[in-house]
Amino acid sequence: MLSIDRAGGTPWHRQLYDILRAYILQGRLVPSSPLPSTRALAEQLGIGRNTVIRAYDQLLSEGLIEARSGSGTRVAMLFHQPPSAVRGAPHSLRMSRRGEILARRAQPARSPGSVNVQPGVPESATFPFAIWTKLLARNARRRADDILGYEHFSGHSRLRAAIARYIGVARGVDCLPEQVIVVTGAQAGLDLAARTLIDDGDTVWMEEPGYLGARNAFLSSGAKLSPLRVSREGWRLDDHRLPRPDLIYVTPSCHWPLGSIMRMEERQRLLAIAEKSKAWIIEDDYDGEYRLRGRPIPALRGLDMSGRVIYVGTFGKTLFSSLRIGFIVVPRELSAAFDRAVSITGQFAPLILQCTLADFIEEGHFARHLRRMRRLYARRQEDFFELCSRQLGSWLSISHNDSGMQFMGKFTGQLNDELVASAALKRGVHVQPLSINFHATRPEHGLLLGFAALNELEMKRAVTRLRATFEDFERRLSR
Amino acid sequence: MLSIDRAGGTPWHRQLYDILRAYILQGRLVPSSPLPSTRALAEQLGIGRNTVIRAYDQLLSEGLIEARSGSGTRVAMLFHQPPSAVRGAPHSLRMSRRGEILARRAQPARSPGSVNVQPGVPESATFPFAIWTKLLARNARRRADDILGYEHFSGHSRLRAAIARYIGVARGVDCLPEQVIVVTGAQAGLDLAARTLIDDGDTVWMEEPGYLGARNAFLSSGAKLSPLRVSREGWRLDDHRLPRPDLIYVTPSCHWPLGSIMRMEERQRLLAIAEKSKAWIIEDDYDGEYRLRGRPIPALRGLDMSGRVIYVGTFGKTLFSSLRIGFIVVPRELSAAFDRAVSITGQFAPLILQCTLADFIEEGHFARHLRRMRRLYARRQEDFFELCSRQLGSWLSISHNDSGMQFMGKFTGQLNDELVASAALKRGVHVQPLSINFHATRPEHGLLLGFAALNELEMKRAVTRLRATFEDFERRLSR
Repeated sequence: MLSIDRAGGTPWHRQLYDILRAYILQGRLVPSSPLPSTRALAEQLGIGRNTVIRAYDQLLSEGLIEARSGSGTRVAMLFHQPPSAVRGAPHSLRMSRRGEILARRAQPARSPGSVNVQPGVPESATFPFAIWTKLLARNARRRADDILGYEHFSGHSRLRAAIARYIGVARGVDCLPEQVIVVTGAQAGLDLAARTLIDDGDTVWMEEPGYLGARNAFLSSGAKLSPLRVSREGWRLDDHRLPRPDLIYVTPSCHWPLGSIMRMEERQRLLAIAEKSKAWIIEDDYDGEYRLRGRPIPALRGLDMSGRVIYVGTFGKTLFSSLRIGFIVVPRELSAAFDRAVSITGQFAPLILQCTLADFIEEGHFARHLRRMRRLYARRQEDFFELCSRQLGSWLSISHNDSGMQFMGKFTGQLNDELVASAALKRGVHVQPLSINFHATRPEHGLLLGFAALNELEMKRAVTRLRATFEDFERRLSR
Repeated sequence: MLSIDRAGGTPWHRQLYDILRAYILQGRLVPSSPLPSTRALAEQLGIGRNTVIRAYDQLLSEGLIEARSGSGTRVAMLFHQPPSAVRGAPHSLRMSRRGEILARRAQPARSPGSVNVQPGVPESATFPFAIWTKLLARNARRRADDILGYEHFSGHSRLRAAIARYIGVARGVDCLPEQVIVVTGAQAGLDLAARTLIDDGDTVWMEEPGYLGARNAFLSSGAKLSPLRVSREGWRLDDHRLPRPDLIYVTPSCHWPLGSIMRMEERQRLLAIAEKSKAWIIEDDYDGEYRLRGRPIPALRGLDMSGRVIYVGTFGKTLFSSLRIGFIVVPRELSAAFDRAVSITGQFAPLILQCTLADFIEEGHFARHLRRMRRLYARRQEDFFELCSRQLGSWLSISHNDSGMQFMGKFTGQLNDELVASAALKRGVHVQPLSINFHATRPEHGLLLGFAALNELEMKRAVTRLRATFEDFERRLSR
């Protein structure tokens, strides 16, 4: 709102002072909120810095603002509170029922300053940032038409083609570029698929235990969830308590959180159930790239003859998680509909990052990085498994699996994993409690330990701190 | 799925050939889909290029793939179609009711190769891309913790603080950084607010005429819309046909598409209605920055004492539209809930762009760019208004307003604007028909003309082509 009348007779410093004073007294600038630096404000208004300094000086002298060394200039705390400062909590700021579901339970976020042993976090220290930055800068400098405005909301044609080619070869998913819908990460993909495919009251078979983010997306779309039980032995597709599904959510290449792999026979049975029920299948291939031993397991989508499998993929686990680019593969008949849907949900990724990623894939950097990470993660898994078994074996029973970024340790005793996780966080280790992945059955307790991002030192530090945490619990229990 | 067994006895070129052949015959690689270049595939598999060439040669000789000069290697069209190629349209690929609403009518997208006279498109030729790129590269090279993983899903703390400071000064919106929820553009903000605040069957007062993107977001959240009529004279808040609202959507600083500004008296009445009805107000401030004459109109949010106004802002119109960063300002009591909600919808923006934007604002580039654009747009508006009045005056009655990026031209005769717009597109001019903004009342026909991105040459070209389009219609009508 700040603007100076250059033609008027009032001196500029006086105009500025008048405006700021009014804002403070009206409470539009709230007590203790910071003011821009004199230099920044002068710049912004296109006036001399001395003019701003004069206006600030006058406000300072009236006690309307305060300058503290080091923390800049702030609006003073006034005795007579301006109206905005006394605004109480409004009476009935009610969210919708859907909003309350959305707000109920979040994905676990990062905790800064701790060793991050959360699952699903890729190594970033060895990511080729120099190359990435070069490609990014090249695309930022390009002012071409295709990077400045959207031709298709569902993604830049170059990236869609690169993804289609890549998942064809790497994941056995054959599709046309137009079937690839680029979104802001796998979570956005799950949310978009849920909203466009599920009606209120529809039945969703949700893996139990299963991925919280998917569960939240289905619930907020109004789905009724039925638990599809999964164990180390497989998927209980013959469970007669299950009602006819409208949608089935699975992680067949590497079950979250157990790490099981769906057998071919189960895959075929699952496809037959979907076909018979006319149900959708959402295949969340969050970890498909990272099978460390043996050949990667082909995606379920490659077996699907009926177009009922929606494939969800992400670059957040293969590149870095804050990239925010994921994708879903939809039936050809629905690709135009998804293009329109994503224009309304706004879940489309910035074109500059899309073009940079297309370059990164096309020029072979992605494949090279993946290969390097596969080797690195295999080594780290061995090391971390050994370290954990040796140091934490009395408290954790660790299942070694072939997945690439985390493993599961079940508690041998009767500890509560949320308590253990928050005690560990106080000691500077961020782990995920296993029980948050159980929703319909009695939760098992344990930890999901992500090792992909940990170097040798961090591994040792994490294990030492976890050991101390467990010892602490043991002492308390024995008292 | 492609991987080479390095220990086995089978020669590598033979393994590669076997796999590719099976994929083609199974239809996993579909006819005419491109294969990676020999160099890229060799790189990816970590084998010699000659090995790949041998495998490709064998496939070529069997007619399974084709090499055309210039377009690389592709899977051949086989006579016996592999199973995937005969997959018909699946019987019942049904979207949800919500999905059908989402897919019904999209935002207008860009059309490449034409003069883009669509509204809301900012100038990009003079955007300081060199500075932007420098800041972007600096952030890409930084491997700091805060840029690699999310601490808060609702945005990087530096950007949230910069936005809060900026809208405090520039738009009279006082809020704490934690009330700013950073999302992937204004459309995502509208969608997020609609989902979290509206239940199925809730009543939304929607401006009539009004913004299609907002309308779509409300409809897909299950709202029942009631038209809040707006004309050049103002908002018909006293319309007794309107039921009690649960949410009211307004563009008070510059009505879309009419350009009207909400008077203080109307603002106060609107706030009183919301307070009495315990309704939310969504203030879409899409164009608030660009008032070209007189002082900018303060945001409605600045007058709100009850915390009922959700403010929606965007950088897509002040920087460039493919940036995909917007934000909403929510009541303090709900900021934690919105943080969790956005973790499920996945509408959070990439941290690297968030940090770059924070730098861009903090270092004064944003304010400087805005100032420059305001002057440029004022000049362009004058020029384009004059040009259109002179050349198109017989067909268009143009209202001159103070908004910064587009004006409205109503047809003087009985033309259908969707027909005119598509005829204009064939002549290489992309304009928006006015009638798509009417939903509940008889549509007026005309064009929304965006001038912000047009240089002198493009303006002339656009007007000449529009004139030819109109003359064409005239000839047809007179026949």
